[in-house]
Amino acid sequence: MNTTGYDPNITALLVIDPYNDFISEGGKLWDRLKGVAEANDCIPHMMAVLAAARNARLRVFYALHRRYRPGDYETWKYIAPVQKAAWSRKTFEHGTWGGEIRREFVPQPGDVVAREHWCSSGFANTDLDLLLKRHGIQRLIVIGLIAHTCVEATIRFAAELGYDVTMVKDATADYSEEAMQAALDINIPNYASAVVTTSAVVESINPVSK
Amino acid sequence: MNTTGYDPNITALLVIDPYNDFISEGGKLWDRLKGVAEANDCIPHMMAVLAAARNARLRVFYALHRRYRPGDYETWKYIAPVQKAAWSRKTFEHGTWGGEIRREFVPQPGDVVAREHWCSSGFANTDLDLLLKRHGIQRLIVIGLIAHTCVEATIRFAAELGYDVTMVKDATADYSEEAMQAALDINIPNYASAVVTTSAVVESINPVSK
Amino acid sequence: MNTTGYDPNITALLVIDPYNDFISEGGKLWDRLKGVAEANDCIPHMMAVLAAARNARLRVFYALHRRYRPGDYETWKYIAPVQKAAWSRKTFEHGTWGGEIRREFVPQPGDVVAREHWCSSGFANTDLDLLLKRHGIQRLIVIGLIAHTCVEATIRFAAELGYDVTMVKDATADYSEEAMQAALDINIPNYASAVVTTSAVVESINPVSK
Amino acid sequence: MNTTGYDPNITALLVIDPYNDFISEGGKLWDRLKGVAEANDCIPHMMAVLAAARNARLRVFYALHRRYRPGDYETWKYIAPVQKAAWSRKTFEHGTWGGEIRREFVPQPGDVVAREHWCSSGFANTDLDLLLKRHGIQRLIVIGLIAHTCVEATIRFAAELGYDVTMVKDATADYSEEAMQAALDINIPNYASAVVTTSAVVESINPVSK
Repeated sequence: MNTTGYDPNITALLVIDPYNDFISEGGKLWDRLKGVAEANDCIPHMMAVLAAARNARLRVFYALHRRYRPGDYETWKYIAPVQKAAWSRKTFEHGTWGGEIRREFVPQPGDVVAREHWCSSGFANTDLDLLLKRHGIQRLIVIGLIAHTCVEATIRFAAELGYDVTMVKDATADYSEEAMQAALDINIPNYASAVVTTSAVVESINPVSK
Repeated sequence: MNTTGYDPNITALLVIDPYNDFISEGGKLWDRLKGVAEANDCIPHMMAVLAAARNARLRVFYALHRRYRPGDYETWKYIAPVQKAAWSRKTFEHGTWGGEIRREFVPQPGDVVAREHWCSSGFANTDLDLLLKRHGIQRLIVIGLIAHTCVEATIRFAAELGYDVTMVKDATADYSEEAMQAALDINIPNYASAVVTTSAVVESINPVSK
Repeated sequence: MNTTGYDPNITALLVIDPYNDFISEGGKLWDRLKGVAEANDCIPHMMAVLAAARNARLRVFYALHRRYRPGDYETWKYIAPVQKAAWSRKTFEHGTWGGEIRREFVPQPGDVVAREHWCSSGFANTDLDLLLKRHGIQRLIVIGLIAHTCVEATIRFAAELGYDVTMVKDATADYSEEAMQAALDINIPNYASAVVTTSAVVESINPVSK
Repeated sequence: MNTTGYDPNITALLVIDPYNDFISEGGKLWDRLKGVAEANDCIPHMMAVLAAARNARLRVFYALHRRYRPGDYETWKYIAPVQKAAWSRKTFEHGTWGGEIRREFVPQPGDVVAREHWCSSGFANTDLDLLLKRHGIQRLIVIGLIAHTCVEATIRFAAELGYDVTMVKDATADYSEEAMQAALDINIPNYASAVVTTSAVVESINPVSK
């Protein structure tokens, strides 16, 4: 499989959960992510990949976690621990700054924003698969947060559903190096056909930019 | 299978697309639906089933069609005819009265509103299946619009996904008697384990009301 | 949308349930299908479309109903009427002639046979969507049985999932003209972007054959 | 949530990939799994949970990986690395001993065996979700192989789809302690509402056995 060179007719950039609560100073989870994020230059790398994708006219898709709203979980008979945590923290609370997308990553006209996901996978219980198909997309370049939850989940689902995936390993972050390695070194390489750096993927997307 | 007697722990009422554009005087499609809807006493029947369900503490779920927003379809490579029609008519336009739920059917606290669906099935590309499971629901009583598109599609998907379905045949409507019969007489009886009248289902839900 | 001219890189022929029980003399349901099937020249048309697809190197996919096996339904808490009928008739019984594919339609090397479906849609609870994606397929030409159940269900799901669909209206059959019309005239035109004759689709697939 | 005490009406045991190739002496992957499997007493624990479940009349479901067959992948446009590995090793080859279930875990009458899965999740592209619903199952107790691929994937999907999950942490195994910990300590606790030992789950299933 040719992983250098991404045909814009069938390739999209998928940006996962670039919320203020995750990646902005003052966000509810920034203090837990900051160490790995800064060591990885996560935010500049996410910006670089996004810019390269826009420059190459790759369509940009967003997979966004459910913004917390009162009443979301009170009536559920069963709830997964990751959802219980989101509930107790009111992560990405709807109508608050923490539930807004960090300024540099706000969707632009022509971008496609899938329905919010309730758990970790951007595909589960959303219209992401439909919207990718309706745009003829077969390959995904993935950036965003958090490596071992939403990013890994979305990549696992993408592979199960039949998409070809490239993961940009320095355009993500996690709560700890251990969790980051679990995602990037142990799990994602089974499902993504390429796990690459920002500079490599930018070069592949925009070969003439050299 | 016992279709009289609905255990509220595992049964929900599912209300499909009770938008002003469909069932209110002045709605974009009311003129096309009016004949069958009035002959069927569709709206009073929908109100009666909803009241009976609330009285019996059956949880109420809503399956709602995508409210039209500018930019919805311009970039799609493929589009189904039913979506092309929704696009050209701007059906259920977001932010307009036509895209609001008819007054008597507005969701109440404790009701569960699934994400909007893009085509006809309330299950496809939405969180309806998840939210039903998270509330322990295994059986659905279905009312709403339109019989041969969203209602039939949602019932077909419900059966494919493993739910037991009761269709209330006089709490729906359609563009023509022929389309109504295609749904109620030819197709839905293959997928719904019961196709009943409002009076029968109300009696089953609230047996003591006799 | 260009419906004449099917790019073999993204288009497949989907053949639905060409079992002996449906379309061979002596099959369990042939007597019920015979009238419409013969009036429609269903079998010669299915053969013509299949031959044209193979000639044009369109990949051929099969969506096949569950072959009945003892124990299939005994433990189910809920069962749809269409499944109860399959159970009582032992339709497409595994290991019998009725559960074999009619001779002219037996899959060839390179064809892709999806897992059997339990209800009517070739997509529900199967790997059909995955296998289409893994072959880069975005458009489907559909032939097979029965118009108002498995064919309509599969087309409805295809549209919901994002595929572009062409239905070949004289390469199918049904239990009655009324059921056939419900499928071909009322429902399928909402979901298939083209509903065409065998001669039209053969001409589109093999334009040089003119 | 009450994790001790499992109502057999809504709880099932899910056994994942107990193939000879994984957990029998001589299996293709046994040498890679042996170290962790033996340190964890994986096989005796799997047997103990299975026996307890049968004794308590919990229904037993099987999620089984695609048995390799020639022609499986040759025509795929895209393939995930985990599938490429299965292809090159011919893991669980159909018709061979390695593709058979280890003797102690062979399905019994009344057990439910879902269609084979192509990648890692027992839910993706299979009928597992349908068959669970058709039996009224809402909660899963999970045992089997391999922790960080099929087990973790199936648990992630189960949570996304709305099931309550209990993972039996000493009834699984992996290629390395590091991969095992990535699954059991980092990822699965986000999605399974309980991660317990065999002795704890056996006691919960059969409280009177004390």
